[in-house]
Amino acid sequence: MPTSGHPSFSFKVLGANSATPIPGRFSSSFVLQYNQQLMLIDCGEGAQIKMSEFKVRRSKLNHIFISHLHGDHIFGLPGLFSSLSLNGRVEPITIYGPIGLRLFLETMRDVTDGRAGHEIIIHELDGQATHNLGSINGLSVSAFPLKHRVPTLGYRFDEEPRPLGISTEALAKYKITIEEIKLIKDGMPIKREGQTIPIANVTKKPLPLRSFAYCSDTAYDPLIIPHISGVDLLYHEATYLHELADKARERLHSTSLEAAMIARDASANELIIGHYSGRYKDLSVMTEEARTVFSKTQLAVEGAEFEIG
Amino acid sequence: MPTSGHPSFSFKVLGANSATPIPGRFSSSFVLQYNQQLMLIDCGEGAQIKMSEFKVRRSKLNHIFISHLHGDHIFGLPGLFSSLSLNGRVEPITIYGPIGLRLFLETMRDVTDGRAGHEIIIHELDGQATHNLGSINGLSVSAFPLKHRVPTLGYRFDEEPRPLGISTEALAKYKITIEEIKLIKDGMPIKREGQTIPIANVTKKPLPLRSFAYCSDTAYDPLIIPHISGVDLLYHEATYLHELADKARERLHSTSLEAAMIARDASANELIIGHYSGRYKDLSVMTEEARTVFSKTQLAVEGAEFEIG
Repeated sequence: MPTSGHPSFSFKVLGANSATPIPGRFSSSFVLQYNQQLMLIDCGEGAQIKMSEFKVRRSKLNHIFISHLHGDHIFGLPGLFSSLSLNGRVEPITIYGPIGLRLFLETMRDVTDGRAGHEIIIHELDGQATHNLGSINGLSVSAFPLKHRVPTLGYRFDEEPRPLGISTEALAKYKITIEEIKLIKDGMPIKREGQTIPIANVTKKPLPLRSFAYCSDTAYDPLIIPHISGVDLLYHEATYLHELADKARERLHSTSLEAAMIARDASANELIIGHYSGRYKDLSVMTEEARTVFSKTQLAVEGAEFEIG
Repeated sequence: MPTSGHPSFSFKVLGANSATPIPGRFSSSFVLQYNQQLMLIDCGEGAQIKMSEFKVRRSKLNHIFISHLHGDHIFGLPGLFSSLSLNGRVEPITIYGPIGLRLFLETMRDVTDGRAGHEIIIHELDGQATHNLGSINGLSVSAFPLKHRVPTLGYRFDEEPRPLGISTEALAKYKITIEEIKLIKDGMPIKREGQTIPIANVTKKPLPLRSFAYCSDTAYDPLIIPHISGVDLLYHEATYLHELADKARERLHSTSLEAAMIARDASANELIIGHYSGRYKDLSVMTEEARTVFSKTQLAVEGAEFEIG
C-alpha cells in the first residue's frame, strides 16, 4: 500500500524469463523508480524494446545495476547505449556490475564504431564482497554477494531519512517562530521559559522508510538474509519448482519454495519471483508453491509494476 | 513466381528498421532459405526472439552473413549463440563478416562465461574487397563492398547449375540405354549409327537459375551494379525518402528512389526495400516513391516472406 505523501517507489518488470528470451517472456530486466528517477536492474536482450513498449522515459534513467555477466542479464546493454547515443543523450549514465563489465562495454563500443555522446561511468565491483554504494537518487544503495556460477551481486535500496515535516496545526497552536522552525528542522526540541515542547508535538509523524532488494541469480543461500532483512519488497529468482531442487542446486539457481523460505526468514513484506525456466508455460504453479510458505508472493510478468511499501 | 520442380528459395524478414529497434520494427535481420537450409543475413537485437515468433527452425540454420559491424546488424548475435548452446546444439555454424567480428564474438563469449557446445567457424573478410565464398547449401555465394561509414559487404547468392534431368518421354521414344544415360548426365549428345540425338531432345528443359542479392547499409552507389546485375530479388536499403537525399548522402545511406534506381539499372526482377528511419510511421510512402522508378518494389515488414524467382 502506498502511503500518501511518500515519493513514488516502484519496481517494473521488462522481462523475467531465464536464459533464453521468447516472445512475451524476455530475459531479466527491471526498472526501479524512486521519486520519478529511473534505475535499470539487469538488462537482458530486448530491454530497450520493452522500454519503448511500456513507455519508460529513458531521459529519467541515470543508473544501471548489473547482477552478473551472464548474457541473459547484459545482452541488452550494447543496444540500449547505442540507442541512447543515437537519440542525442548528453547526460552521463552510471553503471555498476562485476569485474569484466568494462571490457564488455568498451569492446562493444569499439567494435561497432560507437561514439557515445554522453559519459558512461563504469563502476566494477568485486562480486565476492559487500559494497556500500552510497546515496543514489535519494536511496541508500548496497551490494552483496549471491551464490551463483560466476561472481554475482544482489542489490538493496533503502529510502533515506527525510527532513522532519512541521505540523501546520502545531504552527498555530504553539505560535512557532521562524527561529524555532530552524531548530525543529534540525530535530531539536523547542525550549521556552520553563517549558519544553517535544519535537514529536510539532512535527508530522514520520512516514516509514521503505526498502527493496534484488536477488538474481542465486542458489538458495541463507547467508544473504542479513543483507535483505526486513525489506518491503524482495525480488528473488525462482527458476524451478521444488521437484527440481537437485537441478537448482547443481546449476546454482533457486526453487520457488526456496525463494519463499528466504522471503519468510528475511521478514520481507512481499515477494516477487521471476527468472523462470522456459519449461513452465503456466507460471501459476510457481506462485502456488511459494505461497505455501509465504502468502504475499507475486509473479514478475512483463509490464507489471509493483509499488514498494 | 515459383517454378514447380525448383528447390524452395525465399527471403524472410525478422526485422528491417534502421538503428533503433521498436516494438514491431526490430533491427536488420533476415532469413534466406534454400532447399530447406537456412542462412541468417545480419542479426540485430532480438533476432532470436523473432525466430521463435515466426517459428524459424534453428536446427536448419548453418550459415550467417554479416554486412557490417554496426550494432543494429550484430547485437542479436551474442544472444543467438548463447541460446543455441543452451539448447544443446552440436552442429557447427559458420559466420562471415568484416574484420572485427572475431573480437566481438570472442569477447562476448569470454566475458559471459559462454561455452559453446558447437564450433563457430568465423571467416573475417576484408570489407573493401570482393570475395568468392564458394558453394554454400547449393548456392554460389559472393561478397562485394558497399559504400558506408565502416567496411560493409553486400552478398549475392546464385543457384548452382543442377544435373540435367532426363525426359521420361525420351527414354521410351529413343529406347535410351543405361550407358547412354551416363552420357546424357554428362551433357553429351548420343551418337548412334549415322544418327546424333541432340542433348536437348532427351533432357527436360532446364529451369532458370535464380539469384538474390542483399545490399545494406549503403549510400547510392552505381559501382555495386555489376555485382548484383540480373538478380531475381534484390534487397536494398532505403533509409529515407528522397526529400532527405542530402541527409542520406551525409550518413551514407540511400533513399527509396535511389534503391529503385539501383534495382532498375541492375535489371533486377523484384526489389525489397528496408532499413527505414524510425521517422516514417506509415511506410507506404517508401514504396510509393520507389515504384515511380521501379514498379516491382515491396516493403520488408516483419514476418513477410518473399519467394525468389
